Amino acid sequence: MSGNTFGNIFRVTTFGESHGPALGGVIDGCPSGIKVDEAFIRQQLLRRQKGSKRKEPDEITWFSGLLDGVTTGTPLAFAVYNKDARPSDYRQEEFLLKPSHAHYAYKEKYGVFDYCGGGRASGRETVARVIAGSIAMQYLMKQNIFIQAYTLQIGDAQVRNFPYMDLSSAAENAFCCPQEEVYKAMQQILLQCENTGDTVGCKVGCVIKGVPAGLGEPVFGKLSARLAGAMMSIGAAKGFEYGAGMHAAASYGSQINDQYKTDFSTKHNFSGGISGGISTGEDIYFNVAFKPVPTLMQDMPTIDIKGNPAILKATGRHDVCISPKVLPVVESMAALCIIDSLLELKAYK
Amino acid sequence: MSGNTFGNIFRVTTFGESHGPALGGVIDGCPSGIKVDEAFIRQQLLRRQKGSKRKEPDEITWFSGLLDGVTTGTPLAFAVYNKDARPSDYRQEEFLLKPSHAHYAYKEKYGVFDYCGGGRASGRETVARVIAGSIAMQYLMKQNIFIQAYTLQIGDAQVRNFPYMDLSSAAENAFCCPQEEVYKAMQQILLQCENTGDTVGCKVGCVIKGVPAGLGEPVFGKLSARLAGAMMSIGAAKGFEYGAGMHAAASYGSQINDQYKTDFSTKHNFSGGISGGISTGEDIYFNVAFKPVPTLMQDMPTIDIKGNPAILKATGRHDVCISPKVLPVVESMAALCIIDSLLELKAYK
Amino acid sequence: MSGNTFGNIFRVTTFGESHGPALGGVIDGCPSGIKVDEAFIRQQLLRRQKGSKRKEPDEITWFSGLLDGVTTGTPLAFAVYNKDARPSDYRQEEFLLKPSHAHYAYKEKYGVFDYCGGGRASGRETVARVIAGSIAMQYLMKQNIFIQAYTLQIGDAQVRNFPYMDLSSAAENAFCCPQEEVYKAMQQILLQCENTGDTVGCKVGCVIKGVPAGLGEPVFGKLSARLAGAMMSIGAAKGFEYGAGMHAAASYGSQINDQYKTDFSTKHNFSGGISGGISTGEDIYFNVAFKPVPTLMQDMPTIDIKGNPAILKATGRHDVCISPKVLPVVESMAALCIIDSLLELKAYK
Amino acid sequence: MSGNTFGNIFRVTTFGESHGPALGGVIDGCPSGIKVDEAFIRQQLLRRQKGSKRKEPDEITWFSGLLDGVTTGTPLAFAVYNKDARPSDYRQEEFLLKPSHAHYAYKEKYGVFDYCGGGRASGRETVARVIAGSIAMQYLMKQNIFIQAYTLQIGDAQVRNFPYMDLSSAAENAFCCPQEEVYKAMQQILLQCENTGDTVGCKVGCVIKGVPAGLGEPVFGKLSARLAGAMMSIGAAKGFEYGAGMHAAASYGSQINDQYKTDFSTKHNFSGGISGGISTGEDIYFNVAFKPVPTLMQDMPTIDIKGNPAILKATGRHDVCISPKVLPVVESMAALCIIDSLLELKAYK
Repeated sequence: MSGNTFGNIFRVTTFGESHGPALGGVIDGCPSGIKVDEAFIRQQLLRRQKGSKRKEPDEITWFSGLLDGVTTGTPLAFAVYNKDARPSDYRQEEFLLKPSHAHYAYKEKYGVFDYCGGGRASGRETVARVIAGSIAMQYLMKQNIFIQAYTLQIGDAQVRNFPYMDLSSAAENAFCCPQEEVYKAMQQILLQCENTGDTVGCKVGCVIKGVPAGLGEPVFGKLSARLAGAMMSIGAAKGFEYGAGMHAAASYGSQINDQYKTDFSTKHNFSGGISGGISTGEDIYFNVAFKPVPTLMQDMPTIDIKGNPAILKATGRHDVCISPKVLPVVESMAALCIIDSLLELKAYK
Repeated sequence: MSGNTFGNIFRVTTFGESHGPALGGVIDGCPSGIKVDEAFIRQQLLRRQKGSKRKEPDEITWFSGLLDGVTTGTPLAFAVYNKDARPSDYRQEEFLLKPSHAHYAYKEKYGVFDYCGGGRASGRETVARVIAGSIAMQYLMKQNIFIQAYTLQIGDAQVRNFPYMDLSSAAENAFCCPQEEVYKAMQQILLQCENTGDTVGCKVGCVIKGVPAGLGEPVFGKLSARLAGAMMSIGAAKGFEYGAGMHAAASYGSQINDQYKTDFSTKHNFSGGISGGISTGEDIYFNVAFKPVPTLMQDMPTIDIKGNPAILKATGRHDVCISPKVLPVVESMAALCIIDSLLELKAYK
Repeated sequence: MSGNTFGNIFRVTTFGESHGPALGGVIDGCPSGIKVDEAFIRQQLLRRQKGSKRKEPDEITWFSGLLDGVTTGTPLAFAVYNKDARPSDYRQEEFLLKPSHAHYAYKEKYGVFDYCGGGRASGRETVARVIAGSIAMQYLMKQNIFIQAYTLQIGDAQVRNFPYMDLSSAAENAFCCPQEEVYKAMQQILLQCENTGDTVGCKVGCVIKGVPAGLGEPVFGKLSARLAGAMMSIGAAKGFEYGAGMHAAASYGSQINDQYKTDFSTKHNFSGGISGGISTGEDIYFNVAFKPVPTLMQDMPTIDIKGNPAILKATGRHDVCISPKVLPVVESMAALCIIDSLLELKAYK
Repeated sequence: MSGNTFGNIFRVTTFGESHGPALGGVIDGCPSGIKVDEAFIRQQLLRRQKGSKRKEPDEITWFSGLLDGVTTGTPLAFAVYNKDARPSDYRQEEFLLKPSHAHYAYKEKYGVFDYCGGGRASGRETVARVIAGSIAMQYLMKQNIFIQAYTLQIGDAQVRNFPYMDLSSAAENAFCCPQEEVYKAMQQILLQCENTGDTVGCKVGCVIKGVPAGLGEPVFGKLSARLAGAMMSIGAAKGFEYGAGMHAAASYGSQINDQYKTDFSTKHNFSGGISGGISTGEDIYFNVAFKPVPTLMQDMPTIDIKGNPAILKATGRHDVCISPKVLPVVESMAALCIIDSLLELKAYK
């Protein structure tokens, strides 16, 4: 399972399972001299927990790489201990396969059936991403690069952010939804899901402002390819698009070609800030679609581990929608992409 | 620009520009003992040229790695010489920025303004991908793994392949469009573009059959993340989705949860053959959206390299739509993902 | 400092400083189903401490990757907390540069002057190597691959293991020195150093038995190159040789060419079990030379951090010779090389 | 055989066999704007051929990455066609195993018996290293970093460069031997080998001047570890040492500790310019020992591929000693290490 490292220069390796002793990570290649703002990390971790039924203090233990709160250049290692792990909640899972969960695939791959709450495939794994990403974000903010994720869609309540809208007030509601009336519709959908024991999918948008031109390494390390890989590595992600996105398939060149202004910016930025896989200096826009949480609070027909039909009775503590919890995760993965590409660019300049 | 290598175990490094002497690649980590079927490669290269106005024989020169047509385990290196390169067609581009092209980003990144036909950002770069991918496909076919790409959408003519349809007859028309009536509408749209000098976007689907369970390395090397990165590394790609895809954002868990059958397959495979980032053994389905070719046969307002307004008069030889040419490219990148993950799985078993 | 990961498939990332809270590592790509024998790890850790003046319990905290003591395929993360860290012992080092220490180089590289006991450059860093290496050794032993390091030289007391000698009784004395009379001379040299406050260098040999033919990836991933890089990454290493080694420079082809026997083994194995960078199936022999511990129990002239002459008065707790403590470290790094190359070979077979 | 790429940021992938159509490489991550001096490359290639019995023009064909002789930032690909390949010289090798050659190991690894002149294991493979290394050297020379290799030992004729001697006149004789009288003894030894049909080993030294402090990435990417891996990847290398080297094993701390001068340089540079794996800014000194060329012009007893005893009658064209041909190879591999670590350092600054 040698897939737990992200990045080439700012390299993050994560570990930990949902109901094991701890989750954490190692940042190898963090520039020295960065003052780590723990309050900012804590704030992002809180956003990552928002609405979660499992209660974790998410306190960070630092093992190395810091001297008086400043990075020294050596590996920055950290862990978050699980306090509210409840393996016993999941005992029945020793026998029943949960629909649309990773248990079966893990079992086939590793020959081991870890019945405890999804193990490595749980959303709790994102704790380490958010910590590492928050440190990257602090470095980027010093260089006036800002990343903001927002909820564009939950079920059929949606904002279509193309052409792009003003997002400055997006942070004002709980879902960071840029349109107040859509936000209200989203609330309704979630309430309804709570009542029926159902769950719902969502689409998250993200803008990155202040990125210099030149990030991304053609042809396989295009910034768009890296962002896509980063976002699709988040548990429930099912789709990624940037700029004109999926809409591009339905468009004519005369409609979505980007016309240059005399300051080398473009009129509409249909390209989403990336051209030929390289950042253009304009704002980067991308969206990620997530599937509904697969654990319902409804009885579900399934099979047991021997293939016999069974009924899965929902227990445990599960969320209705991955948004808004996923917003800081999207921001964090974007930050890891951008910092890595930015350090890479510095090497070649 | 250290981004020209794809894969960890079956590692492909490509090189070459649209109007330079040659394009090619090196496959490092190709298993020994594979009989290379040149006819199959040639067929895929022909599909990659279909409808292209530039005429290239695309003959492959092999430099190393083969003994009597069989791979020896040493690096497999090859080149395709450009025969129909016409740098002079592009002279005016020395001065004018082409809308939605990569010239500006390349210039900002490298400080070099390569005026020749898009250089590394040209679609011609995919020649090396198709050659490498075809060799991967031959290895996979021996293991009963088959990859097939098809055109789902051109402009507003579209097939919605979700839930999945029978694709067995897709290969019968020029676009590999699985519905004959949509194929005809696509033809109409392309004809209209030819007449107006416009171009149009498209969406390509792809299915991979016969993949064993267990491919993909959580959490950052999820098979879905690798496929997304691979597809978004193709020049004009703007969006990627798999299984339920973007539709997942609008769905309820009760609608798209995958119910197990007693043979451990699922009723609908909404997961698209990947669960928790690991292949499940069911067919893998994904789609890629591509933008319209940015070079129109229409005059376009733009700026010159100093920022002065100008009119770009289209010359050169350009295509109207990236499909169906892109189909073997999508298949090839999928093959490179799958072979790499398959060899990786073997290491751990 | 993105240099803390070792291996391609069995990937070990380590962290931690000598006087920070903890040291540890993450093994990404550990095959599932390995029963971890903690007693064996503890024994190797004890050997790594032998004769050390700093007393550490070296208890391992496991964070993830284990279920009932068996690896699950997910990242195996662990830490060892520092209990006997004494930053205050090193206070004067805030001002004085220690001869042949890494402080100056670290300061120039990172712009940070970590005055605490060598930080990441301390030999204590090898704790994580030994833990990871011990797990690799357990996997290898199941496949009848055995690794044994021994002391060949301390000062001018030396065994010349070329042609190779019987090493079966090497483990019987404290230094694992294969000749009893040389062992006694070594003891004398160390005693003399204790008396004079001096330190002394050493040469360690290592044999790997049971390796199948085919390990190593020409041309840059030759097994000899990997072993050399692995050994030279150990703190005090100054030289590496395998097979005929440095002696080869003084030899004629007619003397050290390996003559085949009819079972495809060779008469003398001057090649040291590696030919063309690939293991031949014969025993692998290599040696590593280490410099004396640079901290003496003698006053040493030096400069302070501003360049003023000064006298460094030795304090702290320091060893006289890196052997025999380094023996399990050499074995561990050898194990990490071999397991990685072995898993890689499996991918291609 | 995924071991043909060297470097992380300035990444070189090589290909080609001794008697195949061509050898070559791809440099991915070469900074843009470097003016390539072909005359310098040619000069290094000539040194690499010096005394060789096989005559090759070694003309370079460039495929990509250059515009008017200046690097563009895209992959720099090149090939050198084999003109004097004589597979028929090697026909008998189809049946007989050559002592101390890689044939057997290759056959076991790949299941393919490439009887043509050593294939990938031939010294001819170094052509691509020298071309890539020469481009790196040009970049480094612009930054006042200079690399010089010299012959320290051939058989028992040797210079001991520790403490270091003045090397300024080393380039004046054919072997770049820093002592004229040793040079003469070396000539005698080679003459004698020519007469007896024997071959002889050698030791090559190398100094790198002008390296800034801070190169190398602890703990596994130490500059010493990278240099060791790079040097031991050269075909016939059997040993590597830097600074005090093997001699360190016989030394006391009080003898080889490096005393600081008030300008932060050291009195003797016993550390060889690397401390804690990081360059200190002082000259870097290392040595590499090479075994004798294994092909003798004497009849040698061996076995055929079925294990039957046989006599190998030497034919083909073979060299007596790898020096001085190997000198530009050592310089090139050193340059690839240094440029990669230098670009890496820039990323973090």
